[in-house]
Amino acid sequence: MSNSAFEPVTVVLDWGTTGFRAFLVRSDGSLVDQKEGERGIQSIAKGEHGRVVSEALASWRAGYGPLDIVAAGMIGSRNGWIEMPYVPTPASAADVAAAARTEGLPEGNRITFLPGLTDPTGFPFPDVMRGEEAQLVGFGLDRDIIVVLPGTHAKWAEIRGGHIERFRTFVTGEIYATLADHSFLSKVATAERDHAADAFAEGVALAQEESTRAGGLLTRLFAVRTGWLAGAIAPDEMKSRLSGLIIGWEFVEARTGGWFKEGDTIAVVGDDDLVEVYGRVAENFGVKLAPAPADAAIRGALTIWRRHRLAAK
Amino acid sequence: MSNSAFEPVTVVLDWGTTGFRAFLVRSDGSLVDQKEGERGIQSIAKGEHGRVVSEALASWRAGYGPLDIVAAGMIGSRNGWIEMPYVPTPASAADVAAAARTEGLPEGNRITFLPGLTDPTGFPFPDVMRGEEAQLVGFGLDRDIIVVLPGTHAKWAEIRGGHIERFRTFVTGEIYATLADHSFLSKVATAERDHAADAFAEGVALAQEESTRAGGLLTRLFAVRTGWLAGAIAPDEMKSRLSGLIIGWEFVEARTGGWFKEGDTIAVVGDDDLVEVYGRVAENFGVKLAPAPADAAIRGALTIWRRHRLAAK
Repeated sequence: MSNSAFEPVTVVLDWGTTGFRAFLVRSDGSLVDQKEGERGIQSIAKGEHGRVVSEALASWRAGYGPLDIVAAGMIGSRNGWIEMPYVPTPASAADVAAAARTEGLPEGNRITFLPGLTDPTGFPFPDVMRGEEAQLVGFGLDRDIIVVLPGTHAKWAEIRGGHIERFRTFVTGEIYATLADHSFLSKVATAERDHAADAFAEGVALAQEESTRAGGLLTRLFAVRTGWLAGAIAPDEMKSRLSGLIIGWEFVEARTGGWFKEGDTIAVVGDDDLVEVYGRVAENFGVKLAPAPADAAIRGALTIWRRHRLAAK
Repeated sequence: MSNSAFEPVTVVLDWGTTGFRAFLVRSDGSLVDQKEGERGIQSIAKGEHGRVVSEALASWRAGYGPLDIVAAGMIGSRNGWIEMPYVPTPASAADVAAAARTEGLPEGNRITFLPGLTDPTGFPFPDVMRGEEAQLVGFGLDRDIIVVLPGTHAKWAEIRGGHIERFRTFVTGEIYATLADHSFLSKVATAERDHAADAFAEGVALAQEESTRAGGLLTRLFAVRTGWLAGAIAPDEMKSRLSGLIIGWEFVEARTGGWFKEGDTIAVVGDDDLVEVYGRVAENFGVKLAPAPADAAIRGALTIWRRHRLAAK
């Protein structure tokens, strides 16, 4: 730790509902250290967030001096630390940086909250994201391309002319998790086999089936149960089948909504596991995949923070 | 109770996952008495069901002599008392009656289990129902008509030529309940206002919106959250809005699947509250409503049971 005080570092903070992860990174985004904590934003009383984060990062403060912390996502939501505004699309990295806000913390630390994004063309209400804008900036806004960001509330975003042009939310992960944990399926489904890839692929194929007899999503979902009753789906394949069906359905809806057509190139950005899974589904729908960095969220948060710091000087 | 032993009565038993209701009825279906119990089929060990039901109905046994009990629905499922077969569609009331099965119980009672129905044209697996076949028979199979049966797993059934011709399941109630109780929405939504009819109607209207910008179901569901963020939906309106959206979406999918078109006459059969709600949605979709008896399940169970008894003599 002897030279550490001379190494310029930044903390990228991912503080969500049920816990937080903090990444200590160099200016090029490379990782020095990381921490995880179990205290989510909703478990902390208003006014206590600053003390909690300063305590959690005390060892880094001791080694590197006062810390610059960059926080994107739900920590800046109505239920978080402070409610940050939403920047309307189309939005450049500079637009996002201009709406960021820096606060002093105990022990000389500083925290910069990033804003969220809103798409005023959302129907019937403006669509919203918090955190994904950092991932998109980290992916890069220099190519015109569609980017999918998997998650509880998956986003499809269009990047055009150096801006995040528009985006739309799909509640894919939410539907999967609530059905897997709290439905007819949860009473029967067991932990998944290690390689339930076939079951996942069959779920995707069911989403892709275009005949009227397949019905809509509300009907296809029931096929996870009828397949089990028919002895065609084992309890340890049901969740993979459900996952393939719902993610496949997200692609069906995205295609109908004009987000891609067969032969297009799209990117998938997010956590490694979901990126791999979404990449497979994308191939099933005949789209080419643009490579994306694994650490887009960290890179993007740093990029926005630097622009914010420069503008503030 | 002096004359009760001379009054021919039957018990219609609705024994589900979390409790049971028993109806003591005359031969015309009119109600003499009813009981409710909290012991669902899943809380009872194999081999104990007969004792439990005989004890629960002991006072009726004492007043009316040995009881004939008719049981439809989940009590005859894989997780119930005994697993009854599924009768394939097209199926008449006589076909259903022929697959029923009568067992002796303690104290001279007898129980007749009704079978379920399966539609082999279900894709990719045969569709199934348990209990709704009694409602359909109680509604009547003498008119050619489409009947909607709201519920956790709502059914659309076609009655034609005295048969239940085909049916399809929509997991409407399941999606509503899991999202209302376990999603992003459950953290914000409060108990509903007494008259959130406007919010319900707006949900239906969102389901009916045909422009591409409205997106598919996975996107429209997020609008319950974005509407709250935009200050346009109050916490005590969110569940009504969600309900309107999902039931409306069931009608959208049913229309796409060829179950009805504007101007058709359909029937809605089930519990009073849901029948009223589905009736309102049906009107929004421009369909006329055929009247349906409120006690279709009891009438149907009795009708099937009588045919079964006649055939057994």
